Amino acid sequence: MATLNEKELMNEIPTYDALVVRFSTKVTIDVLLAATNLKVIACAGSYFGNVDLCAAKNLGVAVINAPIGDNLSACEYTCCLTMALARNTMKAMDLSIARHWDPSLYVGTELKSRTIAIIGLSEIAKKFARCMSVFKPFIMCYDSRYSASYCKRYSAIKMELNQIWPVADYIIIFSTPFGSNQTYINEEILRACKRGVKIIIIGKSNVFDTIAMMDALNTGHVSGAGLDMYDEDLTLLKQPIFNHPSVIASMHLGVQTEEAVMRCGQEAAEQLINLCFPGTYYTSQSTVVKFQDELPHLVTSNTC
Amino acid sequence: MATLNEKELMNEIPTYDALVVRFSTKVTIDVLLAATNLKVIACAGSYFGNVDLCAAKNLGVAVINAPIGDNLSACEYTCCLTMALARNTMKAMDLSIARHWDPSLYVGTELKSRTIAIIGLSEIAKKFARCMSVFKPFIMCYDSRYSASYCKRYSAIKMELNQIWPVADYIIIFSTPFGSNQTYINEEILRACKRGVKIIIIGKSNVFDTIAMMDALNTGHVSGAGLDMYDEDLTLLKQPIFNHPSVIASMHLGVQTEEAVMRCGQEAAEQLINLCFPGTYYTSQSTVVKFQDELPHLVTSNTC
Repeated sequence: MATLNEKELMNEIPTYDALVVRFSTKVTIDVLLAATNLKVIACAGSYFGNVDLCAAKNLGVAVINAPIGDNLSACEYTCCLTMALARNTMKAMDLSIARHWDPSLYVGTELKSRTIAIIGLSEIAKKFARCMSVFKPFIMCYDSRYSASYCKRYSAIKMELNQIWPVADYIIIFSTPFGSNQTYINEEILRACKRGVKIIIIGKSNVFDTIAMMDALNTGHVSGAGLDMYDEDLTLLKQPIFNHPSVIASMHLGVQTEEAVMRCGQEAAEQLINLCFPGTYYTSQSTVVKFQDELPHLVTSNTC
Repeated sequence: MATLNEKELMNEIPTYDALVVRFSTKVTIDVLLAATNLKVIACAGSYFGNVDLCAAKNLGVAVINAPIGDNLSACEYTCCLTMALARNTMKAMDLSIARHWDPSLYVGTELKSRTIAIIGLSEIAKKFARCMSVFKPFIMCYDSRYSASYCKRYSAIKMELNQIWPVADYIIIFSTPFGSNQTYINEEILRACKRGVKIIIIGKSNVFDTIAMMDALNTGHVSGAGLDMYDEDLTLLKQPIFNHPSVIASMHLGVQTEEAVMRCGQEAAEQLINLCFPGTYYTSQSTVVKFQDELPHLVTSNTC
């Protein structure tokens, strides 16, 4: 099924009450102005970034998403990135292609007994902590919302950010501690990190200073980064950091699985039906309302 | 520390009683003939492939190895390859380099509910089964040495090979079912496999027919392969299959971690001391003897 472009969508949309979209379909202000009948947009994934939330809010169009369906895929992908960084799998592929068969250049480290820090104990992060614990690392976590005993349920020790930087071998950023996508991994924080740290960022653009990160990668202070992010205008992705040999870059592949696509589509459809007939599906009406309530917060960084 | 080449080792060896080597040091027949005082060679890893076992046996030089020290590293690397194949991580890197940011081309699959078949329930395979079970796949295993109830301890269902081929999503080969490195993944077996199967081979050269495998990769019948192997003369590694976009190839990186290098060195040293003073270390004398007993078997494929 091909994705409709802006013009095609503008032609198609006027008669519709509801619109279900995946990330590649952009719901711009022009689409919304043409959608004279539209009451709700459902994003079939745990994102809103493809919808002009500001315009939707002003035009009284609700926006919901499917917040659960892709969590497991994102969790498994985070495990995948963690292991690939641990074992220099990508660098070793260059070795394969260049026929430089010197395994000693690609000596990795086990995960066992390494320190993995989780920033933001999201639902994905909780699953990730559970999965990684089988490899017996030390897991620590920063999330001001949760108590130390709550974090312990996920085998994680609650710590403050300034305690985490100097000890973590892996820092996994699931959500930003200071509101929406603010750049907070900067030169100062990177300097506070342990030499050789590996940093993984899941589904967040612009949370790190690309110049500071690039410098740290070049000196080896950061020994690897896994960047699975989306950026609507692709400006970030054009930067040279995404070609650095110690970086595994992918465009939001974390949620790109056959299973997640199916589950998110189903979840979005169930939420839409629940809007008309509350309680029809397990995906409760309250979840839908919650996302509508959160809209004002979500659009604070925009101009509306 | 640089590796001694054959000539340097021949000059150095005559006065020594014992030799500890890692994989990159080749103990050839000429080295052994020069080693007039040598009683034992200890390989600091779970391999013997760098030693001319046939010559060592004929010259009465014992060969021992460190069979346990690198198991965990090999296990973690096998998990790493499994996840990287599941999520098209390597192909997505090409996407990054070529700036083709179309995530839909790299839709992966979750491990949950997929079928993972283990061929050869080695110590590494047991650890691998334990680690992977956290992702909740179906695990099956072929190993004629073990009962169904024994396999169940590792969350694995014991099955025959012909039952495994048509159902497995992942086939992980830890040891060869029919004696030493015999080529047994051939055209017929690949044809019996489920379309889209992923095959991982850990530390075994020549167990698959490279032409049949290449054909199956080209048609997509095999959708990915992880080949972590060593081959002394590198002939195998020069084949084009190691450059196929669906192949993750590495030269025995499975055991290349800082931790494994340390543990294997320690294990080899402890085994050597146990030879003189049995029972000094937990690495028991019986393990050492066992490996000496196995030598006749290990050299059957050679000419001696």
